[in-house]
Amino acid sequence: MNKTIILNSRPIGKPQLSDFKLVEEEMPKITEGEILLKAKFVSVDPYLRGRMSDAKSYVPPFELQKLMGSGLVAEVTESQNEKFKVGDFVSGALNWKEFQVSTGENLLKIDDSVAPLSNYLGVLGMTGLTAYFGLTEIGKPQKGETIVVSGAAGAVGSIVGQIGKIMGCRVVGIAGSDEKVDLLKSKIGFDEAINYNTTEDMTNAIAEACPNGVDVYFDNVGGEISDAVHANINRLGRVINCGAISAYNDTSVLTGPRVEYFLIKKSALMQGFIVSNYAEKFPEGIKHLSKWLSEGKLTSTETIVEGFENIPQAFIDLFDGKNNGKMIVKI
Amino acid sequence: MNKTIILNSRPIGKPQLSDFKLVEEEMPKITEGEILLKAKFVSVDPYLRGRMSDAKSYVPPFELQKLMGSGLVAEVTESQNEKFKVGDFVSGALNWKEFQVSTGENLLKIDDSVAPLSNYLGVLGMTGLTAYFGLTEIGKPQKGETIVVSGAAGAVGSIVGQIGKIMGCRVVGIAGSDEKVDLLKSKIGFDEAINYNTTEDMTNAIAEACPNGVDVYFDNVGGEISDAVHANINRLGRVINCGAISAYNDTSVLTGPRVEYFLIKKSALMQGFIVSNYAEKFPEGIKHLSKWLSEGKLTSTETIVEGFENIPQAFIDLFDGKNNGKMIVKI
Repeated sequence: MNKTIILNSRPIGKPQLSDFKLVEEEMPKITEGEILLKAKFVSVDPYLRGRMSDAKSYVPPFELQKLMGSGLVAEVTESQNEKFKVGDFVSGALNWKEFQVSTGENLLKIDDSVAPLSNYLGVLGMTGLTAYFGLTEIGKPQKGETIVVSGAAGAVGSIVGQIGKIMGCRVVGIAGSDEKVDLLKSKIGFDEAINYNTTEDMTNAIAEACPNGVDVYFDNVGGEISDAVHANINRLGRVINCGAISAYNDTSVLTGPRVEYFLIKKSALMQGFIVSNYAEKFPEGIKHLSKWLSEGKLTSTETIVEGFENIPQAFIDLFDGKNNGKMIVKI
Repeated sequence: MNKTIILNSRPIGKPQLSDFKLVEEEMPKITEGEILLKAKFVSVDPYLRGRMSDAKSYVPPFELQKLMGSGLVAEVTESQNEKFKVGDFVSGALNWKEFQVSTGENLLKIDDSVAPLSNYLGVLGMTGLTAYFGLTEIGKPQKGETIVVSGAAGAVGSIVGQIGKIMGCRVVGIAGSDEKVDLLKSKIGFDEAINYNTTEDMTNAIAEACPNGVDVYFDNVGGEISDAVHANINRLGRVINCGAISAYNDTSVLTGPRVEYFLIKKSALMQGFIVSNYAEKFPEGIKHLSKWLSEGKLTSTETIVEGFENIPQAFIDLFDGKNNGKMIVKI
């Protein structure tokens, strides 16, 4: 039998295991032009929380009692499509199924001799591209400027910090545990990191960590952490609104200080984005990320959980910050 | 004796007449290299409210018991400076004095045969340049897009709407009285206008006035009016944060819905600015504004109050929206 995971109920607040359901089905069969894929690695990402609600957004919501999905790396185990042969590895937006049938459309062939397969869900996948384009296209950091990253130990944040260093900036991370703060400073290369869970006055802590103020703020978190960064933004500062995980489950942070005042006073900018806005430039992004990875300037931080049935728990753990870097489920 | 106006006390909330003081002094005398200026027109602007507080901002605060100042048009009545002759008209940042001495530095000679002198404080001055650069440099409106303007009947807003029409956009204004709504639609050329004082559901009213959504929002007001516009913003929309008059006197609107969520969902942008950011491009702006003015595509809407001693009241009246277009005091 083939294992699949469906959306059992729409979460209220933080997702629960009962919002998901493991369903077994007959093993799928391919016909002419199709390939059979075996899931190898499954990406779990905060943005999926939005798709579990039925609110209108930039991607359609998952349907109740239908399959969940995300970015997957898979192996071709059967092929009736001349473009793919058994043993090929691919990445793409796929369903949460151990085995699934595909026409091969929108799948990218990937090479495990260039980088470990899991990297194609992280630093060489949407995660890396999100960090790269958000930072370079909106943040436009200049050498010597200061970049603050919230959710710094997360999948996107840990890459943003490293690209910031490559670009010659001072990089300060905000994360939720001393362990993450240590990781950011000792392994990932941040100049400074702040544990927001043990810091009483975040505004002051950011001011101390950023003696020249904040030129670029890469925001994965939103909420009160962001208020504290906004208070330290420099003239002509840029805020990249990549995510707002603080609010995905919690409606109490939906209001806060109005931003018009600091935006006007500082001639500052806030801009939201999704990575697909830059789809035309993906090859450029991949080229830079691959080069930095191969030169050792960029390291991939991953938290790998094992077992298909653990996908929902791995996803839920994102909201408790249990991941360092990219959270991936190995099948 | 020469009349001057000083800052008597820092306002708490809305400025009062008692925050200002009319002070008489000896008539000033010029020496070598100087000119004597007689004030002809005085600009009063919402941003001056910020300078009456001692909070740090992009311009230094006025000092207590020292002169107030703003944009003035003045006539040269005596000259010991070869660059200026008696009868010349100039505009620039000057003090609130009937007569004052200047070296001529940072003053612009203006020509009353090109446009009425008061226009140099409005459509051909900082006001027009603020509208022009905010809209074109941040808003970047494309033909056929929809622009919403708050404070639409104000000095900047009324020009933004007209430039929007010149650029081929649908332009919708928000103002505070039926008289202003009529003015916007019948005289200034807005396609639609909404009276926020008599509209219960602003979000819905904006949706109805903007059947294709809002691509560009030129915000002079901030606060709840802006919340309603943000709710209607299109994908890749742009919000120009020019002013936030709703909050200059009222601290109760300092919190509101967090904007990260719509910015991310819509890949939208908010950007604050002050006109001096674009100082290098002022000649380009003046060229366009003068051309449109001479072609009759741009009309100047002004509310003119008479009398030097009425400058404070004219300024206070801005916060009650008593002006249509640019508020100017004629001396």
